[in-house]
Amino acid sequence: MLIRVGYDISFETPVEVPIVALLNVHPSRAGDLREPDELHLEPTVKIDTYLDTFANTCSRFVAPPGVIRLFNSTLIEDPGELDAQNPSARQVPVGELPTETLRFLLASRYCEVDLLSHTAVELFGEIPGGWERVQTICDWVHRKVTFGYNFARGTKTALDVYTERLGVCRDFQHLAITFCRCLNIPARYASGYLGDIGVPVAPYPMDFSAWFEAYLEDRWWTFDARHNVPRKGRVLMAVGRDAADVAITTSFGSAKLTNFVVISDEIIQAQATGV
Amino acid sequence: MLIRVGYDISFETPVEVPIVALLNVHPSRAGDLREPDELHLEPTVKIDTYLDTFANTCSRFVAPPGVIRLFNSTLIEDPGELDAQNPSARQVPVGELPTETLRFLLASRYCEVDLLSHTAVELFGEIPGGWERVQTICDWVHRKVTFGYNFARGTKTALDVYTERLGVCRDFQHLAITFCRCLNIPARYASGYLGDIGVPVAPYPMDFSAWFEAYLEDRWWTFDARHNVPRKGRVLMAVGRDAADVAITTSFGSAKLTNFVVISDEIIQAQATGV
Amino acid sequence: MLIRVGYDISFETPVEVPIVALLNVHPSRAGDLREPDELHLEPTVKIDTYLDTFANTCSRFVAPPGVIRLFNSTLIEDPGELDAQNPSARQVPVGELPTETLRFLLASRYCEVDLLSHTAVELFGEIPGGWERVQTICDWVHRKVTFGYNFARGTKTALDVYTERLGVCRDFQHLAITFCRCLNIPARYASGYLGDIGVPVAPYPMDFSAWFEAYLEDRWWTFDARHNVPRKGRVLMAVGRDAADVAITTSFGSAKLTNFVVISDEIIQAQATGV
Amino acid sequence: MLIRVGYDISFETPVEVPIVALLNVHPSRAGDLREPDELHLEPTVKIDTYLDTFANTCSRFVAPPGVIRLFNSTLIEDPGELDAQNPSARQVPVGELPTETLRFLLASRYCEVDLLSHTAVELFGEIPGGWERVQTICDWVHRKVTFGYNFARGTKTALDVYTERLGVCRDFQHLAITFCRCLNIPARYASGYLGDIGVPVAPYPMDFSAWFEAYLEDRWWTFDARHNVPRKGRVLMAVGRDAADVAITTSFGSAKLTNFVVISDEIIQAQATGV
Repeated sequence: MLIRVGYDISFETPVEVPIVALLNVHPSRAGDLREPDELHLEPTVKIDTYLDTFANTCSRFVAPPGVIRLFNSTLIEDPGELDAQNPSARQVPVGELPTETLRFLLASRYCEVDLLSHTAVELFGEIPGGWERVQTICDWVHRKVTFGYNFARGTKTALDVYTERLGVCRDFQHLAITFCRCLNIPARYASGYLGDIGVPVAPYPMDFSAWFEAYLEDRWWTFDARHNVPRKGRVLMAVGRDAADVAITTSFGSAKLTNFVVISDEIIQAQATGV
Repeated sequence: MLIRVGYDISFETPVEVPIVALLNVHPSRAGDLREPDELHLEPTVKIDTYLDTFANTCSRFVAPPGVIRLFNSTLIEDPGELDAQNPSARQVPVGELPTETLRFLLASRYCEVDLLSHTAVELFGEIPGGWERVQTICDWVHRKVTFGYNFARGTKTALDVYTERLGVCRDFQHLAITFCRCLNIPARYASGYLGDIGVPVAPYPMDFSAWFEAYLEDRWWTFDARHNVPRKGRVLMAVGRDAADVAITTSFGSAKLTNFVVISDEIIQAQATGV
Repeated sequence: MLIRVGYDISFETPVEVPIVALLNVHPSRAGDLREPDELHLEPTVKIDTYLDTFANTCSRFVAPPGVIRLFNSTLIEDPGELDAQNPSARQVPVGELPTETLRFLLASRYCEVDLLSHTAVELFGEIPGGWERVQTICDWVHRKVTFGYNFARGTKTALDVYTERLGVCRDFQHLAITFCRCLNIPARYASGYLGDIGVPVAPYPMDFSAWFEAYLEDRWWTFDARHNVPRKGRVLMAVGRDAADVAITTSFGSAKLTNFVVISDEIIQAQATGV
Repeated sequence: MLIRVGYDISFETPVEVPIVALLNVHPSRAGDLREPDELHLEPTVKIDTYLDTFANTCSRFVAPPGVIRLFNSTLIEDPGELDAQNPSARQVPVGELPTETLRFLLASRYCEVDLLSHTAVELFGEIPGGWERVQTICDWVHRKVTFGYNFARGTKTALDVYTERLGVCRDFQHLAITFCRCLNIPARYASGYLGDIGVPVAPYPMDFSAWFEAYLEDRWWTFDARHNVPRKGRVLMAVGRDAADVAITTSFGSAKLTNFVVISDEIIQAQATGV
């Protein structure tokens, strides 16, 4: 399956504003790219590209006063398979976890592990560890939280989601991630493209999506407390402890979003038929 | 100057509990050690030692049911100089900062940059960037927050400190760090030993201490909103985004602290006097 | 001036749901009514009418399963004068305040006096007590907080408004009320009708409005941190400590708002012209 | 049973500070007093005594600069019976509640009904309404929250207690009150004397105590999530929505507590024995 992904975003800035963007496909998918994946700016200014400690590709540039446009379109090959499922994946005891997964057990800005641990144990402590526990957490969050774009709020934390029960996709994941960590399961936030492939077209304009990954058995597995069904065609851009680490753009100064278009479409190739 | 540093800590755990400890002197001070610096456990269990993404030395082990003792004593040579001061250190524009400092601009568990940015700009936005701004932040926090051990609380965030104006050393640093980040100055939390060297003996039992580092000009500089005077004899153990990253010990299960002794004493060497 | 005020509101409830509504004009305006002011329900169910401790008229009824419509239209005579202004109104020392005003100095659900008192003193402590202080508070809140209907959130408190700087009219008033109380000025939340009389028509559908009252000199005075200009034609419905006390409707069970129309129009009377 | 109750409290104030004290026995117990119940001040200053909207006796005075002492001792007759228990007391539907109880269903400063309603329904929604539900709430809070004087914090709310699970008596009651209100049971905060009558002497200095009242069947009933066993000898001083309404003293300015003694002792009367 080939998926065309891309974005066209504009900001208006009254003065020079440094911006860090995480708009590249994640290096782990580099081998699947069929076209270059490069952040274009208009006007063109110098871009510093670097990897952060999560191995995400980051781009730093200084937006001049006025309007700056960030855009790209690339083509990626995807196996077109549903998110892998492994109900027998066991929970790894903390003493045996790969050490690089341990930081995904700690509290972070939007995931207050310290505030929700009693609740997590009460709700999910009796569920057998491993896949079933993570899935039960996703089921709970999916059932209890109501989705709505008007519920988006940059400062909303997992505890806010727990009390308000309203949110957008990042909020669903923050709460599920927090519950996982409370129960000693490493969990990290993921952002990327997720088109309407194999599912009814969503009644919203296309946006970047958020899901999360939990470490079980011997690897990270994709979970999505928002949709809570296996999906095809996720294209990972960045992972981190929560949305603070992997904001699509972080502006160090005032920047007004004036345009925002995201695409993620399966390319249906015409088949040549001979006579 | 030679400083003897060490600790003797015990936990009681009803069942096996994995623990991660950040109890080593920071690798950046390895060359100053005059005795080995090693975490000892009683009973002895296997320790996995690794560096986290902040280059802190971390030790993971699984405490068996019962009492576990963590102890060490080591000797470190220290220049015995006061914290370096450089009032002319300039603030580096975000566009020119070393990319590895950028993560210390973001919000973290106990440093809600997103919630305090308006306040930071109102309080300190007119202060010239650089050393003076950081020092003004430290002065403000030092003057406004009242110190008291009974004000300690594991869940207390920078916003809580801002509203309650009560805290222990970690709280002072969290608030100052947050204000720095709000004003685009990278700031990171530091923990380590800080004995009463060159100052009146504090009326409290010795404890680990917290301070912070701000990136100005071309390096990280030590600041301490709690004491707010240059001090001698800091021995760095760990740096991180906030206290969640550098907890002395993080227990993944129930662990009751039953003993806690920290030492950090200057060794006054006897001078040989001839006849 | 004659003002026609009224509302037409519908809720859908899956089961019987008790509702308390504060939809009457405040008893202090009873003498100005030129038509009856009565809550009508469709279907008709028994209404218990009572005064709460703030002397607001409250209506309790039990909505049957299905749709219930609440509606009324009444006519009120209004002096048509701008909100009274008295820059020389002095702040009354707490020791001399009428005792019935004292409860409006305390913290309430959405007005965390205990959390914002340091900030209030820092921002407004130097301003001379009395009218100037309240007006300075209104100016500050009006300037610092950005209005937007999409920023509405039922759980938003004064501290949230202080950190987020976004809100609807109730949020502006909550923050201003809290600052007043922090500085020992009794302040209470007011809700009612406020049409576009004498001002450009607002680009929003008509809604109930919130403002607040501060006790100075010898009486309560109207302030409005949202609009922050004297207005004509306010028709008071209820006063309380904050929005929790004077919600237009409080449903004790699940109730979905399906219709919401508010009117508040000046009646321009045709002048009879003789031949 | 005769109980001697009283207090001896001192504040130091740098300047004149108005204070409101709720230090009298509640008017509902006036008939049981065997000695006058009067707030004494040293130095003597004028006291305004009034009833608030909860019918509590309030005393307002202006403390002059220096030290002010508040003291009293009185004698009250008490039936010496355990808190009344009535497991068959039913929950009154909101539509039938006395209207004066309705304000005790709303959110207040320390009882965030809006934030804990989902949790309350999940934890207690299946428990039959009435006495059993309130008792189950008390059992839960009593079991889940750990008592400790070092956990006291003036700003702690019910949600904080829910997340931290640590507190003093007021915190236990705030959480239980909030859960009751979430489930449409009127609940109000109560403060007063509670000596160690009929129970082992507590290992703490005597203090005022907090409990709460829930409205069931046809009256208010005493519950106490902190002790959670029926007790003898409660002497009510004040009721309110939460601790903000019934603080023992509220100072409108800086006041340092320098002495605090509370007594509540059963008077064992010598029995005359004839020869």
